[in-house]
Amino acid sequence: MSTLTATAVAHPNIAFIKYWGNRDDALRIPSNGSISMNLESLATQTRVTFDSHLPEDIFDLNGTRQSGPALKRVVSHLNLIRGIRGTAIHAHILSENNFPTGSGIASSASAFAALTLAVTTALGLQVGEKDLTRIARRGSGSACRSIPAGFVEWNAGETDRDSFAFSIAAADFWDLTDCIAIVEAAQKKVSSTEGHSLAGTSPLQEARVQDAPRRLDMCRNAIQTRDFAALASILELDSTMMHAVMMTSTPPVFYWEPATLNIVKAVAAWRKSGIPAAASIDAGPNVHIICETRAAENVAQRLSSLPAVKEVLVSKAGGPTVLK
Amino acid sequence: MSTLTATAVAHPNIAFIKYWGNRDDALRIPSNGSISMNLESLATQTRVTFDSHLPEDIFDLNGTRQSGPALKRVVSHLNLIRGIRGTAIHAHILSENNFPTGSGIASSASAFAALTLAVTTALGLQVGEKDLTRIARRGSGSACRSIPAGFVEWNAGETDRDSFAFSIAAADFWDLTDCIAIVEAAQKKVSSTEGHSLAGTSPLQEARVQDAPRRLDMCRNAIQTRDFAALASILELDSTMMHAVMMTSTPPVFYWEPATLNIVKAVAAWRKSGIPAAASIDAGPNVHIICETRAAENVAQRLSSLPAVKEVLVSKAGGPTVLK
Repeated sequence: MSTLTATAVAHPNIAFIKYWGNRDDALRIPSNGSISMNLESLATQTRVTFDSHLPEDIFDLNGTRQSGPALKRVVSHLNLIRGIRGTAIHAHILSENNFPTGSGIASSASAFAALTLAVTTALGLQVGEKDLTRIARRGSGSACRSIPAGFVEWNAGETDRDSFAFSIAAADFWDLTDCIAIVEAAQKKVSSTEGHSLAGTSPLQEARVQDAPRRLDMCRNAIQTRDFAALASILELDSTMMHAVMMTSTPPVFYWEPATLNIVKAVAAWRKSGIPAAASIDAGPNVHIICETRAAENVAQRLSSLPAVKEVLVSKAGGPTVLK
Repeated sequence: MSTLTATAVAHPNIAFIKYWGNRDDALRIPSNGSISMNLESLATQTRVTFDSHLPEDIFDLNGTRQSGPALKRVVSHLNLIRGIRGTAIHAHILSENNFPTGSGIASSASAFAALTLAVTTALGLQVGEKDLTRIARRGSGSACRSIPAGFVEWNAGETDRDSFAFSIAAADFWDLTDCIAIVEAAQKKVSSTEGHSLAGTSPLQEARVQDAPRRLDMCRNAIQTRDFAALASILELDSTMMHAVMMTSTPPVFYWEPATLNIVKAVAAWRKSGIPAAASIDAGPNVHIICETRAAENVAQRLSSLPAVKEVLVSKAGGPTVLK
């Protein structure tokens, strides 16, 4: 072989039941299961070209050659898949996000989902969806949830074999939209990987993990019965529980900014007035407002009028990671 | 007897380890022990006059005749103490706070501490400090901590008999100051009494309660060894843990405002730069910044310059509830 190439497209996902803390940091076996929705409008497209003449791996992201930790993490993932295939050939990775770099939208999920499908395909590996999710998980935990379609559950599992993701409903099963209120474009101060390793220092993490099966059941049922009020309650509770753990870790991690809280309170008031919308916050200050699509335009407009909101990104539920 | 009178003065207190949730709501037996510091500069002065000609109890607070729930709560407390004394005589209560009414400073602790000492004294009851704290507790849980001097611990206990407060250090044992950043004068949306009854609905409350002995030990040790860094860590953690429970109750209770979070983050940054100050938040949006007194003027000035801060109240550690 001299050159082998493949291109894949993946979407980031927003977790309704969050992933925070690992049973095994190295293998990214999570402490609790999680449920998410892929985001159709946001995408990472990644082309992988293996070339026997390359002396080392090259990683270009949004037109910029990468080095340091970003390159290292991609090379580690390449090594994992090269190990499965039994090859040492180097690759050129060309990756583009269609959403603003540094907007605070986590790109590692879509990045490692697209990378996993592109690399396994380019190397000619026959990998089913379940095993793709397991491989993607090793690159970035939440990447496993970007592999299957629509609404996805990640079975926590206890070992590498049983920690995988699967679709619980197609993207068009329930017409939901995520309006993402961007409040700050600055880099995160504490990376997710670092944060996960702190979760166990919170006196509240064990209770959060123990209670997770109950929350997963409530969320799964809410999706399967398209019960927005039930979804709203459980996704807001779960988001707050994750941030409670973060803020009570040693050292404490406050991802919330004053603007974050301002939006959370506004959304709660809107829902009281009858608008089907609920707020969820990932490891950053931005707020994801999950709403029934019929309310999305109204919600996006209201968000835009809040002084603390710089930009609103809007996305419906999205499909699986696919080859292009 | 025809008229019997007594006047008492009590201080509010700021809890370093918070009281949130009851084992018994009616008797106000708390789910966990707590530790606080009395606030010298803030005071409630209460004069009680029992008069056999009065057809009913009268309660004047800051010059305004009270009725409804405020009167009812005071009458209940009078009934408790009248029951101990075996009398049905009515009283005129005249109470004044020297701090802004509606500033968001909890006045129920100093109110029921002063009321308890004035009423028991006017009725000629010989009650020791420990039993005074038990009676005050029945009016408002945290009032028991305003009876003893300085730095006070409330032993949670399991029954009315063993749920009492005691001083662990005199006010002058450690030169600490509370700078209270007032961010909103509006009435609380959820009263403390109502909030306590919601604590058990949070999936995190049990973990918070189970971990309380550890936090109490750390706080008590920090006070006894005058270790500000240790006190800062544990009081900020404990405050955040209480708010984590509040925000994950059903329904959720968010006492934090955007301004609250702004101050908390500012204080954390100041401490990193070497200023001995730490933030604690009660059941409201205001922030108590506990600092070594040598830093108090600097802290108060910095707080005043934050746009969200309306007013800063400053107080050193205070003495016990006393007769006047």
